[in-house]
Amino acid sequence: MPISIERIGSFFIGGETVTLDGLPPVVVNVTADLPPLTVEQNGSFAAFQMYVHYVQLQHPVAKDPLLLWHGGSLTGAVWEDTPDGRPGWQMRFLESGRNVYVSDSVERGRASWARFPEIYPTAPIFRSQREAWDVFRLGPRLGEPFPGAQFPYEHFQTFAKSIVPRWTCNDEPTLAAYLALVDRIGPCTIVAHSHGAAFALEVALRKPQCVKAIVALEPSAVPRQDLNRVSTLRGIPHLFVWGDYAEDHWFWKGPVRASRAYSERIASAGVDTTFTLLPQRGIRGNTHMLMLDRNSDTVLAIVGEWLRRAASASAVPS
Amino acid sequence: MPISIERIGSFFIGGETVTLDGLPPVVVNVTADLPPLTVEQNGSFAAFQMYVHYVQLQHPVAKDPLLLWHGGSLTGAVWEDTPDGRPGWQMRFLESGRNVYVSDSVERGRASWARFPEIYPTAPIFRSQREAWDVFRLGPRLGEPFPGAQFPYEHFQTFAKSIVPRWTCNDEPTLAAYLALVDRIGPCTIVAHSHGAAFALEVALRKPQCVKAIVALEPSAVPRQDLNRVSTLRGIPHLFVWGDYAEDHWFWKGPVRASRAYSERIASAGVDTTFTLLPQRGIRGNTHMLMLDRNSDTVLAIVGEWLRRAASASAVPS
Repeated sequence: MPISIERIGSFFIGGETVTLDGLPPVVVNVTADLPPLTVEQNGSFAAFQMYVHYVQLQHPVAKDPLLLWHGGSLTGAVWEDTPDGRPGWQMRFLESGRNVYVSDSVERGRASWARFPEIYPTAPIFRSQREAWDVFRLGPRLGEPFPGAQFPYEHFQTFAKSIVPRWTCNDEPTLAAYLALVDRIGPCTIVAHSHGAAFALEVALRKPQCVKAIVALEPSAVPRQDLNRVSTLRGIPHLFVWGDYAEDHWFWKGPVRASRAYSERIASAGVDTTFTLLPQRGIRGNTHMLMLDRNSDTVLAIVGEWLRRAASASAVPS
Repeated sequence: MPISIERIGSFFIGGETVTLDGLPPVVVNVTADLPPLTVEQNGSFAAFQMYVHYVQLQHPVAKDPLLLWHGGSLTGAVWEDTPDGRPGWQMRFLESGRNVYVSDSVERGRASWARFPEIYPTAPIFRSQREAWDVFRLGPRLGEPFPGAQFPYEHFQTFAKSIVPRWTCNDEPTLAAYLALVDRIGPCTIVAHSHGAAFALEVALRKPQCVKAIVALEPSAVPRQDLNRVSTLRGIPHLFVWGDYAEDHWFWKGPVRASRAYSERIASAGVDTTFTLLPQRGIRGNTHMLMLDRNSDTVLAIVGEWLRRAASASAVPS
């Protein structure tokens, strides 16, 4: 469906300037036409910033922008085309009339990354295809899908190209950058996946005035601190979505349980909460990458329907 | 100016699967809700692929798509908003009626990067702000602009956030990915900057059937091999653009000279060639980052005018 856009672009948010010294210079040859370059490794460097891509519609039907936050080992590209070339959720949300902001989290994609161990204390993790198959819950072992699973398996090698290295030491600056992002954008709806969803739930607790609704797709973690403050989440509807094969999965059964407990905790504090296991709604076969699965539009319809209900509920004075 | 788009999305191109073994496993704690993860460092990994973002218009006025290729230490974000928040060349080319493809080159941005020294033989280079100021020709030393220079200096820290680490060992797989890209997209116009322009000139020589026109913005290098084949470039107009302060700059004077010689070489072989030093056209103050300079729209107008002339010239049977 064609859409009329006012502007497409990007900006950077968060981060700080870090200064290094004591490192020796290195000499490199960049191209044959350039003199050898003595690279002074010391100096000041931007670090811990985030990249944010935006599309502003000419006539958005929803007032608050929609933010899409990716999960671990991935970038904002996960919201663009699926590995088998279908439109991603970014395009679908634009078609539904929302301004969409897709971020690349700290150290991922266009957000850049910084030297280790001088700036990041630890080394990165490179997710192998075997680990991706396992942790993204594509099947019991590399090359073997779960029965009935909806991932576009014949394009797994294309999906593998979207995987990026990650660190596990940067949660704090990442949360700071997400907080700066919602501060800049103002009241917004956040649809977030996996590790991104863990940050979204934290951001709602810390900046409730900036968040209108949260969709947590398979959150890898939930807030553990400040739980006495969950009443501040009243007025911010929360949707938790889980795919198939998750409740008994060695890696995901903990997060399923934790997010169910968190959902119940905030519901008992008066927060409008929906906890959805897709198989219980008759939607089977979803892997952890539910926005890329063959039935991604079906999963999106569940999310879209909930967002419309949440928006109309919040429009009614309580 | 609002634009009507048919689709926005991305894909990956090029690359290969690399298998590693002999590395020891590492144990990491990802989040508090997940069990410690034993990361098997061996296995198969995607490497050397490129990320390509596209915007397809509902009614493009130009038949051939426009490809924007960034330079060294940067990503495709350089074609999006300028550091001071003005529309970038991607938005401007969309407004002019062209489908635009913005790539992140191998190892940059959303293209991901691979382990070193196991997959990339060498370590990356981290460009300090001092080196960026020097090599991007912002002025004689960090914090000091060239007189009359047009870079939005008050937003230098924002620009610094767009700088990414780079390697100097991946020219071959990068060229392979660019060749695969033009093969996939078919006849296209390439507007490329710095190191990206060096690749664009090579690609035109190797896949002349896929290239309609080349705009080389401050190319860091020019083809040195296969110069006996430059007659295959007939029918592919070439524009070379240089900003200010380049001819006497310790780093850039070589590339200016080399690109002028290459321009003359292909012109003498019958190629429609334009070599433009912007100051000689009365446009002063451009740094190496001419698509981000305050007069970026003026520089773009020169490019746009040349592209229209090139397109109408190639439409006339010779």
